[in-house]
Amino acid sequence: MTTFSLAVVPGDGIGPEVTAQALRVLDVIAEHHDVAFTSTEYDLGARRWHATGETLPDSVLQEIRQHDAILLGAVGDPSVPSGVLERGLLLRLRFELDHYVNLRPSKLFPGVPTPLGDPGEIDFIVVREGTEGPYVGNGGAIRVGTPQEVATEVSLNTAFGVERVVRDAFERAQARPRKKLTLVHKNNVLVHAGHLWSRTVEKVAAEYPEITVDYLHVDAATIFLTTDPGRFDVIVTDNLFGDILTDLAAAVTGGIGLAASGNVNPDRTAPSMFEPVHGSAPDIAGQGKADPTAAILSAALLLEHLGLPEAAAAVTSAVEADIAERSGTRSTEEVGEAIASRVAAAVSVVA
Amino acid sequence: MTTFSLAVVPGDGIGPEVTAQALRVLDVIAEHHDVAFTSTEYDLGARRWHATGETLPDSVLQEIRQHDAILLGAVGDPSVPSGVLERGLLLRLRFELDHYVNLRPSKLFPGVPTPLGDPGEIDFIVVREGTEGPYVGNGGAIRVGTPQEVATEVSLNTAFGVERVVRDAFERAQARPRKKLTLVHKNNVLVHAGHLWSRTVEKVAAEYPEITVDYLHVDAATIFLTTDPGRFDVIVTDNLFGDILTDLAAAVTGGIGLAASGNVNPDRTAPSMFEPVHGSAPDIAGQGKADPTAAILSAALLLEHLGLPEAAAAVTSAVEADIAERSGTRSTEEVGEAIASRVAAAVSVVA
Ligand SMILES: CC(C)[C@H](C(=O)O)[C@@H](O)C(=O)O
Ligand SMILES: CC(C)[C@H](C(=O)O)[C@@H](O)C(=O)O
Repeated sequence: MTTFSLAVVPGDGIGPEVTAQALRVLDVIAEHHDVAFTSTEYDLGARRWHATGETLPDSVLQEIRQHDAILLGAVGDPSVPSGVLERGLLLRLRFELDHYVNLRPSKLFPGVPTPLGDPGEIDFIVVREGTEGPYVGNGGAIRVGTPQEVATEVSLNTAFGVERVVRDAFERAQARPRKKLTLVHKNNVLVHAGHLWSRTVEKVAAEYPEITVDYLHVDAATIFLTTDPGRFDVIVTDNLFGDILTDLAAAVTGGIGLAASGNVNPDRTAPSMFEPVHGSAPDIAGQGKADPTAAILSAALLLEHLGLPEAAAAVTSAVEADIAERSGTRSTEEVGEAIASRVAAAVSVVA
Repeated sequence: MTTFSLAVVPGDGIGPEVTAQALRVLDVIAEHHDVAFTSTEYDLGARRWHATGETLPDSVLQEIRQHDAILLGAVGDPSVPSGVLERGLLLRLRFELDHYVNLRPSKLFPGVPTPLGDPGEIDFIVVREGTEGPYVGNGGAIRVGTPQEVATEVSLNTAFGVERVVRDAFERAQARPRKKLTLVHKNNVLVHAGHLWSRTVEKVAAEYPEITVDYLHVDAATIFLTTDPGRFDVIVTDNLFGDILTDLAAAVTGGIGLAASGNVNPDRTAPSMFEPVHGSAPDIAGQGKADPTAAILSAALLLEHLGLPEAAAAVTSAVEADIAERSGTRSTEEVGEAIASRVAAAVSVVA
């Protein structure tokens, strides 16, 4: 029996509520598979910041690093200045643990309401770069608060950083039936970063002759995501464009209540981190209303990453079955319970 | 009788085709209003670059500057390296002529097909900053083409630049019935630029107590543009986010075939420039297939800017009437002709 140690960061707002349901589903997996999970909860987020001024102490980061994977709920609260927790906690984890592949699948499950009139089949993944670009935190401001204020944000992009995520995206495209990869950038304006991305994709493409490659400017990509989302298979893009496109992708596939993500370190030099795409939603926190599905699907990505593809598939199928039969409003806990029972039922049959 | 001098830059791909129809509509306006237009055509774009290596010679810019307004078709061609014409011609015009308000109205006209299942009423404008942000062309690369390549893009933001566009947006919101302004940025990640924007909006808001102000992260804004576009009235945002959001906005309001824009210099220290949001669409160029509606609506924005609101309204109404009765496929010229005749009919009645 293998035991995996999980660092759990429930975080702010609805984070703890949805994380509890993801853990419940992992418990069911543990009961039925030859696997165990130990979890250590880390109290990070708004409460800790208010109490101590800390976002992510080095010692805590050091402890988290010792785990096999991280499960995160959501980070951010209106009582904390915007950016403090995002930069100091969430992005610090992604950068320090070298989560260079931010993996975000977008699939329209049968029965899910979408804002699109005629969505067609939607099933693609976004491979968003996670450790470079405009997210590096390289910027500053002078004469803040005066009419002479100047503020900068620097996007840093390296051949090393771009190539490794592009290779990862090609590998994923190769493993998918349609074998299509779309690079999204804005290389007609951000010419230095954009051309680095384009040249890198062109170079790596030569090693994957079976893969059809195309390029879209980020503005055009938003159009296709609403008019023809079925055209996408694997999208590879930079950190900021990936942030924007994956929220839009979530919207067209039924909302961020269903969108899962993995912040993956493919080299396994540090634990990967799994979290819903949605935020902490302070407006509905504590009411047991939040949909835990995205957190549960993120747990499925975690299982996949830990080398438990069958367990991952059991969770995804349970979610799919649950979604197909949804009606009325259920509490966070009811949704978690429904999915957990389906997982239990399915794995007992297999066992 | 007032005469306005127009600098016309038809540009690449479908640019010349759609520009011709916009000029035809302006001719009709001139016939029926006490106004005349003289136009000087400037041969700028891919052809000139191939022939001479020039994108926008200083002497040409100097001449263009002498006009009352600029009508532009579209810029960019696959035969020219990505960025050369965009940066060297289009963006150079926007920056040199201080087009700090990039105005992009989004309205769902009755009868227009939209990808949204239940769009509701959509009628908002995006005030996109046009002279700062990630578009400044401040970036570079070292060790290009080697595994050690590093490429940067710097977003420059100033209190001066942000405040003037924010003030313009508040003025526009004040003139609209719903009086609502939404700032879109990503101030939880791009904290320096984002906080400059947020503080500026907060400061200016104090002078406009009637205006309801809210804030959305750019990723969340893409969700609302597909799930609840009716919530928007005036959006103010930076250059890059504005680029992305306006393509998405165009998509949900019937496509970029209908989306107009004005690159406005509100201080009138240089001519403003009017152009469709769409690109040069080389795949359909020269076939007389392109929809000139966006170019014609851009001409309406030009009329408005030149102080001819009735003429502008006549063009917009003609477009609206034409759209409501569209069916089958018409050529670029047929659409232009249909709209021009409607404008002629309407103004003859008034006269
Ligand atoms: C909370 C925020 C920092 C984060 C991001 O921008 O990456 C979120 O929007 C996401 O997509 O995971
Ligand atoms: C062609 C390109 C440089 C331009 C931009 O990015 O501004 C276009 O997309 C637009 O929106 O006008």
